[in-house]
Amino acid sequence: MTVKVGINGYGTVGKRVADAVSQQDDMEIVGVAKRSPTYEAEMAVEKGFPFYAASDKYLDDFEEKEIPVEGMLNDLLEKADIIVDGTPKKAGYKPIYEKHGVKAIWQGGEDHKLTGLSFNSMANYDECFGADYVRVVSCNTTGLLRTLYPIHRDIGINSVQAVMVRRGADPWDTKRGPIDAITPVLNIPSHHGPDVQSVVPEINIQTTAVKVPTTIMHLHSVIVDLEKDVSTEDILDLWEKTPRIKFFNAFQGVDSTAKVMEWAKDRNNPRGDINEIAVWDDAVKVEDGRLYYYQAIHQESDIVPENIDAIRAMMEMEEDNIKSIHRTNENMGIE
Amino acid sequence: MTVKVGINGYGTVGKRVADAVSQQDDMEIVGVAKRSPTYEAEMAVEKGFPFYAASDKYLDDFEEKEIPVEGMLNDLLEKADIIVDGTPKKAGYKPIYEKHGVKAIWQGGEDHKLTGLSFNSMANYDECFGADYVRVVSCNTTGLLRTLYPIHRDIGINSVQAVMVRRGADPWDTKRGPIDAITPVLNIPSHHGPDVQSVVPEINIQTTAVKVPTTIMHLHSVIVDLEKDVSTEDILDLWEKTPRIKFFNAFQGVDSTAKVMEWAKDRNNPRGDINEIAVWDDAVKVEDGRLYYYQAIHQESDIVPENIDAIRAMMEMEEDNIKSIHRTNENMGIE
Amino acid sequence: MTVKVGINGYGTVGKRVADAVSQQDDMEIVGVAKRSPTYEAEMAVEKGFPFYAASDKYLDDFEEKEIPVEGMLNDLLEKADIIVDGTPKKAGYKPIYEKHGVKAIWQGGEDHKLTGLSFNSMANYDECFGADYVRVVSCNTTGLLRTLYPIHRDIGINSVQAVMVRRGADPWDTKRGPIDAITPVLNIPSHHGPDVQSVVPEINIQTTAVKVPTTIMHLHSVIVDLEKDVSTEDILDLWEKTPRIKFFNAFQGVDSTAKVMEWAKDRNNPRGDINEIAVWDDAVKVEDGRLYYYQAIHQESDIVPENIDAIRAMMEMEEDNIKSIHRTNENMGIE
Amino acid sequence: MTVKVGINGYGTVGKRVADAVSQQDDMEIVGVAKRSPTYEAEMAVEKGFPFYAASDKYLDDFEEKEIPVEGMLNDLLEKADIIVDGTPKKAGYKPIYEKHGVKAIWQGGEDHKLTGLSFNSMANYDECFGADYVRVVSCNTTGLLRTLYPIHRDIGINSVQAVMVRRGADPWDTKRGPIDAITPVLNIPSHHGPDVQSVVPEINIQTTAVKVPTTIMHLHSVIVDLEKDVSTEDILDLWEKTPRIKFFNAFQGVDSTAKVMEWAKDRNNPRGDINEIAVWDDAVKVEDGRLYYYQAIHQESDIVPENIDAIRAMMEMEEDNIKSIHRTNENMGIE
Repeated sequence: MTVKVGINGYGTVGKRVADAVSQQDDMEIVGVAKRSPTYEAEMAVEKGFPFYAASDKYLDDFEEKEIPVEGMLNDLLEKADIIVDGTPKKAGYKPIYEKHGVKAIWQGGEDHKLTGLSFNSMANYDECFGADYVRVVSCNTTGLLRTLYPIHRDIGINSVQAVMVRRGADPWDTKRGPIDAITPVLNIPSHHGPDVQSVVPEINIQTTAVKVPTTIMHLHSVIVDLEKDVSTEDILDLWEKTPRIKFFNAFQGVDSTAKVMEWAKDRNNPRGDINEIAVWDDAVKVEDGRLYYYQAIHQESDIVPENIDAIRAMMEMEEDNIKSIHRTNENMGIE
Repeated sequence: MTVKVGINGYGTVGKRVADAVSQQDDMEIVGVAKRSPTYEAEMAVEKGFPFYAASDKYLDDFEEKEIPVEGMLNDLLEKADIIVDGTPKKAGYKPIYEKHGVKAIWQGGEDHKLTGLSFNSMANYDECFGADYVRVVSCNTTGLLRTLYPIHRDIGINSVQAVMVRRGADPWDTKRGPIDAITPVLNIPSHHGPDVQSVVPEINIQTTAVKVPTTIMHLHSVIVDLEKDVSTEDILDLWEKTPRIKFFNAFQGVDSTAKVMEWAKDRNNPRGDINEIAVWDDAVKVEDGRLYYYQAIHQESDIVPENIDAIRAMMEMEEDNIKSIHRTNENMGIE
Repeated sequence: MTVKVGINGYGTVGKRVADAVSQQDDMEIVGVAKRSPTYEAEMAVEKGFPFYAASDKYLDDFEEKEIPVEGMLNDLLEKADIIVDGTPKKAGYKPIYEKHGVKAIWQGGEDHKLTGLSFNSMANYDECFGADYVRVVSCNTTGLLRTLYPIHRDIGINSVQAVMVRRGADPWDTKRGPIDAITPVLNIPSHHGPDVQSVVPEINIQTTAVKVPTTIMHLHSVIVDLEKDVSTEDILDLWEKTPRIKFFNAFQGVDSTAKVMEWAKDRNNPRGDINEIAVWDDAVKVEDGRLYYYQAIHQESDIVPENIDAIRAMMEMEEDNIKSIHRTNENMGIE
Repeated sequence: MTVKVGINGYGTVGKRVADAVSQQDDMEIVGVAKRSPTYEAEMAVEKGFPFYAASDKYLDDFEEKEIPVEGMLNDLLEKADIIVDGTPKKAGYKPIYEKHGVKAIWQGGEDHKLTGLSFNSMANYDECFGADYVRVVSCNTTGLLRTLYPIHRDIGINSVQAVMVRRGADPWDTKRGPIDAITPVLNIPSHHGPDVQSVVPEINIQTTAVKVPTTIMHLHSVIVDLEKDVSTEDILDLWEKTPRIKFFNAFQGVDSTAKVMEWAKDRNNPRGDINEIAVWDDAVKVEDGRLYYYQAIHQESDIVPENIDAIRAMMEMEEDNIKSIHRTNENMGIE
């Protein structure tokens, strides 16, 4: 069985998940729905994705640009087994999906309560097995879970304190700032801690966050109070074995988020993305029972493979999360 | 007695300390020494500061610009009781000061071991009383000491974890980046913790640091594990009574480092500086014995009043640090 | 007679014009009207400006903050002879001013047709003498007129080509980008040329514009095809005699907009503003009948003295524009 | 015959040219020489490029990283027919190349006089046919020649005025600024005009330049005084037929350099590069005999196909520049 996936919202997340689905051998894109007639619509058609109009507002423009429109969103919902919703926060499509009896995945901009299930491939694949509605947690929360969950599972965590240094806007987004300022999230602790707990309630985590004038990656400075006495090497070994974590260091010349991005471009990753969480192994340190580390998060792409795994779990295509993770990774070229 | 102060290095720190000395009633500027013939030299002369050449390399330029040169640095050293050294890191003037028998203050770019004494007005004024050579700690360390020392003194600190989100360059400095990246200090914990301990060894503090593309202020996200069970209000009350801490909040419309700077400009602070540490009182929170807060540091100016107090301590002009602090503040217009 | 000036909108422009009016000896602030209870409201009160609420939405907040509200905007309009409108673009207060029979000045965000009269102190003071409604042109247009008008008057201009490299957002504005991009104004020629012609229709000027990730100043690269054969020195001499143009150069160490700002801060200009247009005299060049130059525009403040002169013209307080300019400059500390 | 190409300096230019050579069917990489043991060295080896050490300083590091070193630079020079020099400006390898009798190509950082021949594929391929030493002009100059040369050839140019709004640093380069400033090139006209003339002396062009805080692309605002009376459509038609110019517009949603980069990433261009010059066709306008347009230049990659064509010309592999251009383009996936 090849699962039929529809994409509603063909922006930063939608276009990446569409490509990732196409790379898999057990699922296919049956259509992408988009509102506006930008170049992305033309590219979707060039890639062979059946194109659906998400609203009737721009139908004339699609015609003027000779973009063949297969139908409206409703038509796509009839064809798809599952929808990946990449529309803006609070777009409110859930009742429509329910009406068409199609399963759906939302992204981290939505609240946990929309679905009651928040997903991370390593942490709670089983919990989402067969579910109709699932939220893949945000890029930052995914990043925290990637590195914290294996420690929680194998070593034990007393508490986590993380500071999220967040990019101000995505690279393509010229409207948003700041240009020259640091903006702290004044409502502390920030929402990222509870968001981690929406997947693994047992992790005791508090976070703060600041927004800075960069577009390319978030960076976290994390401190973990460990339950057991382990060494720096133990942590590095554990992460070495964990999928979707990638080590970098200054010895290689990778000493900033910019150099991580350069590495991803040089490796010829699609769109220059890096789906893995970047950890500087030369800055991982356990001291007096406390683990210190930095990690960098590619906000546009770390959640893409999680969406693929979520499809497999929800559609009951694969029972074993590790097998799904490896299948996704292999198909996407993730090491 | 009016203490005679000389300034060696008339840059970011030197020009500010010169103005602050001029505002005091118990000290005066007997000269400023500078190397290059930039507009700052002309302004120093306009302000009535006797001007000394720090090298003979640009004497012709000074003449061309009709900047009256009173003499060379050596001449200034003969006239001054104490020198504030604002020259670049490792400029190495100590032997020259010793030769002329003049006291001297260095800035935080230098190592503690240069002087063996690192200064903060609240924390160790007494220790530096009468000393010949003192280092005023860096802007970031001064910021940490301002908020942490009173907690250490009155409440007790088990441990501090602080993340320093550092500006990449000063506003005038167009040579340095990053333009679009976050650069973590990979050698962790960063040097800021030990630097705090150079003034108050008893504070158990670990820090990490990242550099971001902003020019206007550093921002710290700080977590303090407290010895005693106190409330958020207790902390706010303590800081309210502590000099050189200033509260801001979103209700006033001050929700970023940029708005703190705007406030300082609107208040008509000289150069738009803010000598106080900016703390967002709406983001101060004590939870489970842990204090969370953000503070913003004006890297160019928070250490200026500390230099004035250091002069008073070293010259034995005032025995009581609180009296010196209030005198400095009143003369400088610090609330 | 002391002219009674009211300020409607106490933001970037309003607060600066209020201070500038206060510095004059022939006009006074009878009140400032503001909508929201930010710290600027408190500062207005501290400065002794009678405070009026521009809407009833935040009256409770003003009370909570103990900001004494003298009345509503309507009350201010009864007391004032003339209003300086610093409200956001298209705020639409004209009918209300007309109803109260109060003269009014708008800023460059509004269209020329709102008033039919666009103002620049040097170029068309006489034309606005006694007028009821006048628009002071934008910061960029004011900058172009400052340097171009004397050339038009004394030498003659065949044509002007100017590229405006615009700051993306004001320093305090953390919402707007771009963070890492250049955004061209695709509708070319840009509106700045016609805007110059709203004051001096005879100047043949075409402009293009791009937005860049900086907050501190605009920069123009200007080429003027001259009517007469003059030398670089002739141009410099002309501008030397022209008010509100200030020369900088690399020999002084001022080689960027950041250094111009540093100069203004060091000179202790209020808010670190520079009301003059900054021209690099080492980059002014006449070659083959074409004049090349760069100028930098402090977007928040160059129009402030123009507002003062506009008040004098409209209220018929001074017939001679040069006398008004010198009086404004002297009172504001402009060289 | 397959021409043997060596790369000396495996940085921004070197790594891109190496990949582009590999994509051709009439040339091959016989080795790349690099100084330092960064991840790029590992990647070169993974790509199958024989690796040579450019200095003996890091030989131990290469061994530690298990990077197989085939030999030293001298050994590579013996194997190669032609060297593409991507080393930093003024690295001074010319005498060494001469000693080994190997042809060489330099980049635009070097002076024209080093080679006496400056290259652009469209403009002077013939002139460089069979030459031993050639300089491919800089990214900015290449961009100007791409759009100006066909106009010069087919329509005629009286004069060109161009303002170059330059990126401050490459994306990976976190050391260089400015972070928040505009820095004008005060030595005007800037060197870009004479650089264009090093290829086509007949083009009468003056340029000015400013540096801004962006990393991704340069942007030019260009005005051309045309010899003949043509329409906007004529210009668009001419450029439509010209290789390596690509149109964008706001109707597609591409209204900034950031969106051009997003397009290139979405198209899955290697490294997200765009070898073409980006021209906004909605902002091309001919008015009163003057052509106005903006173009954006991907500083890291527009010169890469020019290097390939230069190899073909110098090695006498193809007499017809248009055939070489099309062959290069087809092999590199340039439309």
